[in-house]
Amino acid sequence: MKQANCMVAQSGGPTVAINASLAGVISAVRKSEKYDSCYGSVNGILGIINEHYINLDELIPDEESLNRLSVTPAMYLGSCRYKLPDYKDDDSVYVFIFNQFAKLNIKAFFYIGGNDSMDTVLKLSDYAAKINSDIRIVGIPKTIDNDLCSIDHTPGFGSAAKYVASSMLEIAHDTFIYAVKSVTIVEIMGRDAGWLTAASALARNEYNTAPHLIYLPETPFHKEQFLADIRKQLETLNNVIVAVSEGIRDENGDYITASTTAKDQFGHTQLSGAGKALEFLVKENIGVKVRSVEINVLQRCASHMASKTDLDEAFCLGEKAVEAAENGVTASMITLERISNAPYQVTYSHAPIKDIANEAKSVPLEWIHKDGNDITPELLAYLKPLIQGEVSIEYKDGLPVYMPVTHLKPAK
Amino acid sequence: MKQANCMVAQSGGPTVAINASLAGVISAVRKSEKYDSCYGSVNGILGIINEHYINLDELIPDEESLNRLSVTPAMYLGSCRYKLPDYKDDDSVYVFIFNQFAKLNIKAFFYIGGNDSMDTVLKLSDYAAKINSDIRIVGIPKTIDNDLCSIDHTPGFGSAAKYVASSMLEIAHDTFIYAVKSVTIVEIMGRDAGWLTAASALARNEYNTAPHLIYLPETPFHKEQFLADIRKQLETLNNVIVAVSEGIRDENGDYITASTTAKDQFGHTQLSGAGKALEFLVKENIGVKVRSVEINVLQRCASHMASKTDLDEAFCLGEKAVEAAENGVTASMITLERISNAPYQVTYSHAPIKDIANEAKSVPLEWIHKDGNDITPELLAYLKPLIQGEVSIEYKDGLPVYMPVTHLKPAK
Repeated sequence: MKQANCMVAQSGGPTVAINASLAGVISAVRKSEKYDSCYGSVNGILGIINEHYINLDELIPDEESLNRLSVTPAMYLGSCRYKLPDYKDDDSVYVFIFNQFAKLNIKAFFYIGGNDSMDTVLKLSDYAAKINSDIRIVGIPKTIDNDLCSIDHTPGFGSAAKYVASSMLEIAHDTFIYAVKSVTIVEIMGRDAGWLTAASALARNEYNTAPHLIYLPETPFHKEQFLADIRKQLETLNNVIVAVSEGIRDENGDYITASTTAKDQFGHTQLSGAGKALEFLVKENIGVKVRSVEINVLQRCASHMASKTDLDEAFCLGEKAVEAAENGVTASMITLERISNAPYQVTYSHAPIKDIANEAKSVPLEWIHKDGNDITPELLAYLKPLIQGEVSIEYKDGLPVYMPVTHLKPAK
Repeated sequence: MKQANCMVAQSGGPTVAINASLAGVISAVRKSEKYDSCYGSVNGILGIINEHYINLDELIPDEESLNRLSVTPAMYLGSCRYKLPDYKDDDSVYVFIFNQFAKLNIKAFFYIGGNDSMDTVLKLSDYAAKINSDIRIVGIPKTIDNDLCSIDHTPGFGSAAKYVASSMLEIAHDTFIYAVKSVTIVEIMGRDAGWLTAASALARNEYNTAPHLIYLPETPFHKEQFLADIRKQLETLNNVIVAVSEGIRDENGDYITASTTAKDQFGHTQLSGAGKALEFLVKENIGVKVRSVEINVLQRCASHMASKTDLDEAFCLGEKAVEAAENGVTASMITLERISNAPYQVTYSHAPIKDIANEAKSVPLEWIHKDGNDITPELLAYLKPLIQGEVSIEYKDGLPVYMPVTHLKPAK
């Protein structure tokens, strides 16, 4: 007999896979013998505080809408960047949240997000333990940064990696056409972890050796060494392509950026990223044609280039979260572990949230080339399975069809 | 009886469709009763000057490679930015080129390119006429800018428009997730013509009204009016999204850019585009969260988001060029004319190259909203058919499979 409801919310930055996990939760609740309705809290934990819920049975009524939701980019339920206070300092917001749970007969709360979101899961779990609540609090991972601990890789990363690698390949085709010496700097997201920048190496194939150089934030960036690396590549190549993380730092830990003191024509301080900084560096010191390309927000929201492996796993993690809550698991995040690379196999489990929240996983130094300008075959082997498979998306009038997000708009 | 050969080359900037036209030429030559071999000149007209040809029968031997070539981005034959001198000043390069044609028994030369490339077609045609050569010189259009005269629209534009529109839709999903006021500026290619920026309006659907404002280079950009436009949109919307052409200019015709005098941390002058400039303008004057996104080179090389309509037309233009040359047409560019919008129908013809070379077609002022911040329904109706249909691309190991371009690499 179904005698309880549950609630789900999303938080942090967008990924292509986060709605697949939401779809997994919805699907599992529908099959559950324990849970009845599944409420969606709009804009993360703020939805509870503002009593802004949506009825997922109404908005996602059938298999068709569930499938469409799975391939829709960013957060269908909206997001927030809200840090809960320590309940020992001020428990009023916790009292309110758990009153809401009681009012709606919520017995399980699922929070899909990255590092910061897992902090929310930890704090809600701690408070639940303190008041001896039987409400299950379960985190579902996602982040394109792939920097969560206790999990082999994170949902959203595989699709972002596929987008980065295919973009790198297409940029290589774009770059190779001119028979003049040139350098192209491609800046990729990842302020503290180089996983996504490393994924650009997946673009290498039998005719394409780009990216020819790769710089991650895990090792210090040396200007002179970088210029020497470029000069060496230019000895044998016309078109040198460099992949660089937005988060590269010098020996002192300072970000490599162009101009923190300069002003634009309106008199404002202008900041730009690592890509532009390296562009200027090459222009000044080497004097060949140089261009920088910033792989923009599309790397986290281009559902048209999603990895099927990624979306399938994200869906499964959503299902497993419901299953875990049914089995009494709480104060945990659902995880996946890699059993083998070939054939690629994973197994699902869960891990204590206290070991995950506010921790970050960098690229291991042994997976970075000793010269700090490339990755090792081991890292490539780790990455390769994650981008496999394509996702079928419906098109209408020439454009992808995604789930309408009208409920995220403010009233006029 | 086949008694003559032909040659094809590509020039100018990359598009997704330019290899489909090359495939059309190769395919038509194979069916031709007049032409035997088809030589590919590597790096545009420079390939003839440097005697660098490839054997297309060897590299593109069958239907499978022809299909793969059609979906491969950028120039399979490489490109150049080379302006022929006036033959009246110096005809030595013409003498050399036409000697090469004679040596290889070339009776038709096809040049696939945009504005500047059509200047090469014009000059070769003029010289051919002067020496009474029977070699047919035929241009095949391409440019993502859609700014060629005597043609309804250019190959490459439809795919770029589809990429821009789908990116805009995905950026909208990415942007709508936060319940805080924000402005997102999306900078799109097109220095002198606003066609591609206008195409961002195709992203609007029943739930997405973005882009909420569109600024093209065809009308002067007024800073104060722009800020007033933004403020008005923020009255009713949380997340305002603006599409802006990289080529917008102020009342004096000066480009809107951030900082031409600023220096970066290495002491170099730093230039950045319209998007960044507007980002700073909003930040300083309105004070909401603001971000700029530059739609990068992917807009011209993302074959994974190609328009089937575009690639089919590009292929057909290649075929028609061979047919025209067989029928004696020269000093011309192959064109297409739109018969109707619904159902969408085009017809192919050709036009004198002298009316096309070095001319540019802007967005007509009557297709721009009188306030200069949007486009009209007529322009939207013009754009809509061009992005229809998806192209099936083979994937291997999670990435698109394109034609190897090993022949573009320099010897070590």
